[in-house]
Amino acid sequence: MEIWCEYAWLGGEAATAGVVIGVEGERIVTVRTGVAKAPEGAVVLPGYTLPGLANAHSHAFQRAFRGKTEVGRGTFWTWREEMYAAAARLDPDNYRALARATFGEMALAGVTCVGEFHYVHHAPDGTPYENPNAMGEAVIAAAREAGIRITLLDACYLHGGIGEEVAEGQRRFSDGTVERWIERVDALADGASRATGSSPAASDQATPSTGPSLSASDAATRPAGSPVSPPDLATRPTVRVGAAIHSVRAVGPAEAAAVAEWANAREVPLHAHVSEQPAENEASQAAYGRTPTELLAEAGALTERFTAIHVTHPTERDRQLLGEAGATCCFCPTTERDLADGIGPAAALRAAGARLAVGSDSQAVIDLFEECRAIELDERLARLERGNQDAATLLAAATADGHRALGWPEAGAIERGKLADLVSLSADSVRLAGIAPDTAAASIVFAATAADVTNVIVGGEFVVRDGHHVTMDVAEELRRSIADLGSAGADR
Amino acid sequence: MEIWCEYAWLGGEAATAGVVIGVEGERIVTVRTGVAKAPEGAVVLPGYTLPGLANAHSHAFQRAFRGKTEVGRGTFWTWREEMYAAAARLDPDNYRALARATFGEMALAGVTCVGEFHYVHHAPDGTPYENPNAMGEAVIAAAREAGIRITLLDACYLHGGIGEEVAEGQRRFSDGTVERWIERVDALADGASRATGSSPAASDQATPSTGPSLSASDAATRPAGSPVSPPDLATRPTVRVGAAIHSVRAVGPAEAAAVAEWANAREVPLHAHVSEQPAENEASQAAYGRTPTELLAEAGALTERFTAIHVTHPTERDRQLLGEAGATCCFCPTTERDLADGIGPAAALRAAGARLAVGSDSQAVIDLFEECRAIELDERLARLERGNQDAATLLAAATADGHRALGWPEAGAIERGKLADLVSLSADSVRLAGIAPDTAAASIVFAATAADVTNVIVGGEFVVRDGHHVTMDVAEELRRSIADLGSAGADR
Repeated sequence: MEIWCEYAWLGGEAATAGVVIGVEGERIVTVRTGVAKAPEGAVVLPGYTLPGLANAHSHAFQRAFRGKTEVGRGTFWTWREEMYAAAARLDPDNYRALARATFGEMALAGVTCVGEFHYVHHAPDGTPYENPNAMGEAVIAAAREAGIRITLLDACYLHGGIGEEVAEGQRRFSDGTVERWIERVDALADGASRATGSSPAASDQATPSTGPSLSASDAATRPAGSPVSPPDLATRPTVRVGAAIHSVRAVGPAEAAAVAEWANAREVPLHAHVSEQPAENEASQAAYGRTPTELLAEAGALTERFTAIHVTHPTERDRQLLGEAGATCCFCPTTERDLADGIGPAAALRAAGARLAVGSDSQAVIDLFEECRAIELDERLARLERGNQDAATLLAAATADGHRALGWPEAGAIERGKLADLVSLSADSVRLAGIAPDTAAASIVFAATAADVTNVIVGGEFVVRDGHHVTMDVAEELRRSIADLGSAGADR
Repeated sequence: MEIWCEYAWLGGEAATAGVVIGVEGERIVTVRTGVAKAPEGAVVLPGYTLPGLANAHSHAFQRAFRGKTEVGRGTFWTWREEMYAAAARLDPDNYRALARATFGEMALAGVTCVGEFHYVHHAPDGTPYENPNAMGEAVIAAAREAGIRITLLDACYLHGGIGEEVAEGQRRFSDGTVERWIERVDALADGASRATGSSPAASDQATPSTGPSLSASDAATRPAGSPVSPPDLATRPTVRVGAAIHSVRAVGPAEAAAVAEWANAREVPLHAHVSEQPAENEASQAAYGRTPTELLAEAGALTERFTAIHVTHPTERDRQLLGEAGATCCFCPTTERDLADGIGPAAALRAAGARLAVGSDSQAVIDLFEECRAIELDERLARLERGNQDAATLLAAATADGHRALGWPEAGAIERGKLADLVSLSADSVRLAGIAPDTAAASIVFAATAADVTNVIVGGEFVVRDGHHVTMDVAEELRRSIADLGSAGADR
């Protein structure tokens, strides 16, 4: 199979004209440039084609209250109460439906791989479901049905605050002990791992013809909402499992060390919310005499596979620790704006050696172009200076570096041997009209929107074509799943 | 004519279901609510309908370098050099074409009235064109052809900095003396005023059937780029003329007083760039011992008809002066982000008594929903607190308050007697799917984008229908006009 791109971004500031991408199975096997006319039989992608986008930090269910938490005043902490109220209404069926719709919106925005930071594990009172991974498997099924890759970052969440029991709204997040978290996640990861290959090498052995799930038949033949059992994942090499330490508020130092050990032994990604709010830093200093980053470093969490989410208020020492570890810092600027978190020091983190990634987090907006430019634009507001990050670095955050943070080093670039995950943008949109190939990266970062995405390919198969999801009516699924969640709440 | 809106925003937090708007000529004559089904023969607007949006601060030509000034580092001042290079290539023909395309993009984004802060008056060496208002009239013609209302804010620009001659790139902005600015703008305003009614009362006398120009026939029958002469405006009550003091950098105190006197005598809007950058404040203090706002107050500029653009770095006294005058503060947050201006104190300005408006300014983005939410979101980043402005206030900034700042008090609300300028948003977009009528204002401010605009009506006539401009291929015009401007530059 050949794909001809009118223009493609292969890295750097410019886009390259006439790029032919040869695909076998789900891999890119050749890349030719300067091909003025589409070869006969080639799939034609007009406009500008990029590697598929990695959404490195998502809480899918929070899509349900987009635009509904903006009434009145408040803080991050009052917003969190509203978020708990929505989380309380989830069950495996409605979670799967809502996540499927949300991941469908992501696909339409060019996201081909999502990192779902997953912490709603049990029934509202904390009792495990009959299948203890019913919730995580619902989210995995949702991503498969929406046609995108997923790294399920299963979050350990044991305390309501440093040294505190979980509060009522947090009970369902907790496994009680880190040992029980390990037991549960072992089962999830072994199921997923056996079935789909948790390492690039294992994934390579999957037969190319399986490809990612485009899910139409799955969705049609399986009873709505029934969770997928691990063996069902066997032919779908689009799922990986990683770990998360929710935060130093929710996980103590010894527990964090146990989670880090689990992730390090398996060589899978490890994520944690870090210093999103000044109050977290203050609590950590008061309890431990250390910053959250220092605590995580001592727990053995900081490696190249570690991603610190937000990192809005790090100290200089924190930046050094993250940089020296070669960790990734995932910024979620539209959420950090929404929750009044503040502006993280992206330039200083990069200078220290950290990589960047981006996430849609609370789903206030699902638009990774907006997230990319917001890293730079918000830092301009903080520093009163332009050009803190160049466009190529910001696009890399949304592509290669984001995929790396999610444990997909073989995705995120248009190169021989990489996964054939691609997203194309229309040059006919009024937002991009007048774009010049030699400054294409900047035009895309600073002017494109999710609405300009026309085609999305995952593992060589179309997921979005001409602006429409190939198997889902995403807006209708969003409407229905959000309405259903509302009535689920009313029932209880 | 009747228009049935599935939902309409009539002010406040909620949207109202089933609103029937009766229109005669270009005015709303009745508003009925709770009408579940569209009356027979009514025009149907699905989704959410708002008053048309006012873009209170625009430099249309800057659309040409969207995405092209983001390479490398720099400041507001280095960006300004690139802007001058683009301005140097304008002539009445290519300016009209570029402005027409840019205003077309605005129409697609729901803008029904633009305030064009116009300062490219003369040939590049400063020589007036044969018609001294050729450039201003080109911009006016562009707005008419794109189907939107315009207030041409003709800017007085006489110095390259405080006490300095204009530099080479600034010569074409200057009339040399304020007397010559008055002479030129008198001619423009009298032409426009005679023809179109510069006051609401005069405008009322226009026959309803004329409506705004939708321009197809105009564009077809007039040679490309030939400027419109004032009599040609006679049947088009969509044009007003106001004044601008470019800044206290470019206009001295006595000159500012003369411009203010001109605007006050005619009772038209007066706008000025104010304290966008700390360096402007420093220069003003060094030269005059006063802030820019204090200087403008002493010049008699601060009235209810005054709009301060940006106001990013005001003192407490500046805020008081603007508030006590009942002035408007026009924020352009996407530009203020782009140019590393900083975050203006919107909440404190409002508390002091000022009103807010929004503008797309440099056209880095043309999306007034993004501008509205950015006022609030950027202030959250500065204050680490949510809820500084409510959604209804922000929507008012983009509608009633913005129109008032442009001298169109009879526009910007869905009320009996107001102009029938409307914009509707699709509830089928994935961004708005799940919106609830009782929190619609917040959902629209925080989640809508320009891409969600489906229908735009100006004076009772469609300008945008089902997402398409009724007379223009806007993307194609943008592409062509931007390319033409590039080659115009290469010629010289």
